[in-house]
Amino acid sequence: MSIRIGIAGISGRMGRLLQEEVAAAGAVLAGGLRRGEDPAALFAASEVVIDFTHASAAPAHAAAAVAAGRPLVLGSSGLDAAQEAAVAEAARQIPVVYAANFAPGVNLVLAMAERMAAALPAAQYDAEILEMHHRQKVDAPSGTAVALGRAVARGRGTTLEEAGRESGRDGHCGPRGTGTIGFAALRGGQVVGEHSLIFAAGAEQIVLTHRSFDRRAYATGAVRAAQWLIGRAPGLYDMKHVLGMG
Amino acid sequence: MSIRIGIAGISGRMGRLLQEEVAAAGAVLAGGLRRGEDPAALFAASEVVIDFTHASAAPAHAAAAVAAGRPLVLGSSGLDAAQEAAVAEAARQIPVVYAANFAPGVNLVLAMAERMAAALPAAQYDAEILEMHHRQKVDAPSGTAVALGRAVARGRGTTLEEAGRESGRDGHCGPRGTGTIGFAALRGGQVVGEHSLIFAAGAEQIVLTHRSFDRRAYATGAVRAAQWLIGRAPGLYDMKHVLGMG
Amino acid sequence: MSIRIGIAGISGRMGRLLQEEVAAAGAVLAGGLRRGEDPAALFAASEVVIDFTHASAAPAHAAAAVAAGRPLVLGSSGLDAAQEAAVAEAARQIPVVYAANFAPGVNLVLAMAERMAAALPAAQYDAEILEMHHRQKVDAPSGTAVALGRAVARGRGTTLEEAGRESGRDGHCGPRGTGTIGFAALRGGQVVGEHSLIFAAGAEQIVLTHRSFDRRAYATGAVRAAQWLIGRAPGLYDMKHVLGMG
Amino acid sequence: MSIRIGIAGISGRMGRLLQEEVAAAGAVLAGGLRRGEDPAALFAASEVVIDFTHASAAPAHAAAAVAAGRPLVLGSSGLDAAQEAAVAEAARQIPVVYAANFAPGVNLVLAMAERMAAALPAAQYDAEILEMHHRQKVDAPSGTAVALGRAVARGRGTTLEEAGRESGRDGHCGPRGTGTIGFAALRGGQVVGEHSLIFAAGAEQIVLTHRSFDRRAYATGAVRAAQWLIGRAPGLYDMKHVLGMG
Repeated sequence: MSIRIGIAGISGRMGRLLQEEVAAAGAVLAGGLRRGEDPAALFAASEVVIDFTHASAAPAHAAAAVAAGRPLVLGSSGLDAAQEAAVAEAARQIPVVYAANFAPGVNLVLAMAERMAAALPAAQYDAEILEMHHRQKVDAPSGTAVALGRAVARGRGTTLEEAGRESGRDGHCGPRGTGTIGFAALRGGQVVGEHSLIFAAGAEQIVLTHRSFDRRAYATGAVRAAQWLIGRAPGLYDMKHVLGMG
Repeated sequence: MSIRIGIAGISGRMGRLLQEEVAAAGAVLAGGLRRGEDPAALFAASEVVIDFTHASAAPAHAAAAVAAGRPLVLGSSGLDAAQEAAVAEAARQIPVVYAANFAPGVNLVLAMAERMAAALPAAQYDAEILEMHHRQKVDAPSGTAVALGRAVARGRGTTLEEAGRESGRDGHCGPRGTGTIGFAALRGGQVVGEHSLIFAAGAEQIVLTHRSFDRRAYATGAVRAAQWLIGRAPGLYDMKHVLGMG
Repeated sequence: MSIRIGIAGISGRMGRLLQEEVAAAGAVLAGGLRRGEDPAALFAASEVVIDFTHASAAPAHAAAAVAAGRPLVLGSSGLDAAQEAAVAEAARQIPVVYAANFAPGVNLVLAMAERMAAALPAAQYDAEILEMHHRQKVDAPSGTAVALGRAVARGRGTTLEEAGRESGRDGHCGPRGTGTIGFAALRGGQVVGEHSLIFAAGAEQIVLTHRSFDRRAYATGAVRAAQWLIGRAPGLYDMKHVLGMG
Repeated sequence: MSIRIGIAGISGRMGRLLQEEVAAAGAVLAGGLRRGEDPAALFAASEVVIDFTHASAAPAHAAAAVAAGRPLVLGSSGLDAAQEAAVAEAARQIPVVYAANFAPGVNLVLAMAERMAAALPAAQYDAEILEMHHRQKVDAPSGTAVALGRAVARGRGTTLEEAGRESGRDGHCGPRGTGTIGFAALRGGQVVGEHSLIFAAGAEQIVLTHRSFDRRAYATGAVRAAQWLIGRAPGLYDMKHVLGMG
């Protein structure tokens, strides 16, 4: 029998993509939640719920999931410490997948970045991260670029703060520091998101690139997480668990 | 005491690089072999021998290694089934490192390719392998490209033969087969070696690229393999064993 | 008064995009043709007709255009010699724009390819053309890749046939011929179209890449060609004439 | 008969590369000049002289070229206004090629950048310039990257200063300005020089990339300039004239 998936935030752009991906995965849409509606009915009708709404709704949705005994896929971003604590508390009773980026490929790239950094000596292989996004994006580097930098630092047994970041080189910046992590940002057109991690040594170069063409990848990943959650033990999971990279 | 390393094919370009890397690694050059010379004396004088000559010489060199009881690093490419069988037979009595590509980064890329393929469903992510080499290269796809294809197949729980390869598309070739592995080859200039593995889905693309700028990386890896072989049990090893990625 | 544009193949995906672009350009949709319908009425009702159907329909549509005295924008691909001859014959009586690719950027790239090839000696700079398309595409290399090859040959004062093409390298193919033009094809995901022209010399490489993210660019270019055709003398035109790069 | 080429600064790394390229071009080495030697004899013995020494030597070498009536290829960099004036003065009597970058490909790329920028509306196509260099490079963006930006601005009928540059994005920088030119810099390994010019629109992207693998490209370009100078009228020429792109 097909899994019944509920969608919180069904009326937005992400909600539409989620509906399509639920159907494409051979699952059944159990129902949808619009702003201001009571989540209890949705959780009761669903085997698992996907929530891509707002940080402010996360505690209430997590509580509703606990009340109904349903797993939760949480894709809202920008949760503050109290909101994150509420989610972690819920995850003691139900299984929750909570991730900053649900694109399966991005999460795979983050996991690979850490492994590669662990294998390539920092003294020989300079790590540089390049990202390109659409012309409307107002900040740099992107959150995913920073996540890549953190993964590299972790692989090297350090943190991004300790390793040091060289971001936005312009003017006289001196020679590159050994072991630092470089960032550069391009902006143009309607690029959804493109990230490259470059390990550059004298005799060789290794480049790992991820390109998003469509926000649909986030919906695909969320539905995959929902399917993976059925029958899991309570706990707070990341996309790397869903993808078998934990 | 320094390891004494012998070099078969010492007079060629690769032989010169190997000599330099033997010295750089603090090892001692035990002797060299030129075309037409008897390998017995070289193997007798060496603790380990590195052979980057020709596929046709592999069986005789493997036999000489067995006769002298010496480990062998074999970097010749294009061995046919009979030549590979002779090497495998020798590896029952002596330790042999036999690899398609000795550059440390390439071997990391091979290991990553397998993991990525295991995480990305073949029905959604088409795997394509692109390689570029100098204009003198006479065959395609390169041994390293095929090794990448085998790594992808392994990650997917199958073999390259079962998955099917689509190599050298030209003319009417029909739509791409699901789960097959594609190969394309570029030739030009003096490119030492460039390999890309592309996982292409509808909404995203992941690309893993390796670029060699210098054949020296192969010599560095071969000397590292020679050092690693001293004291090993008989067997057929790959660079992933040498690099601790097995 | 707005131009009345007819669309052959109106029910397909390209037909929908063409309709939207006709409206966006302030033109009027004069009518559409579905498979099996008689083209005479459409040509009679239109000032110009855009045909993105199939190679096999090109001779009949060209004849209908001549009979009605209407200009024709022809975007069908894969015409054989007899079909191309029928189009050329029609172009003696009506103006026809016939192009491998209607995206404005692709046509700029074709013009640049010719200039670059004229400046870079063929003996030093090997020209290679790489294309990537979605997994459904059934032939290789793409029409645009071949057009790039023709542009390079033209820049070198020869033809693609005389220069020689090396397409789909696989197995033992010998060293690269000097002055030949290489082609390689990748297939995967839903890639709309990506083309790279690489000039590879020993000490440097120049790469010119075009990426289409959306088939809409073809529709935009086709409508632009239709507008440009009104009032032209009979003849066979290319997009470089439409874009003023001829 | 072969051209006799003299080399000022023959004992350095660039001098060695120039000697090899003179031979490779079928020309004859007329002689070489070492630091502190009198240039008169070299100019007398040569049909044309290539000077890749120092800015401070440029006026004396230009004067010696005038005295001997010989053409001059000048590749020294960092000339101040007085030194440039001395060269310009000499160029009223002898033909001089004076360029910041002799790699034929770089100069072709600069010329193409200008033409492409002229054809692609700045309101639709965002221009971004990416460069990568070795870890020792102390400033960003590179001189060639800035030259690319100037070429784009020129093609758009403006200057880089008027168009505005967005270099080294980091932190909150707001949405991309329409018509501005973006710059980003990567540093790592021993990369000799890699430059990409990206035109990014919503539905398509055009990328023009140049990669230098070897300083030899500068020597190749200088010898080509020397051959081109024979029989030219007096004047100050650039590599774009040598390459027929003026």
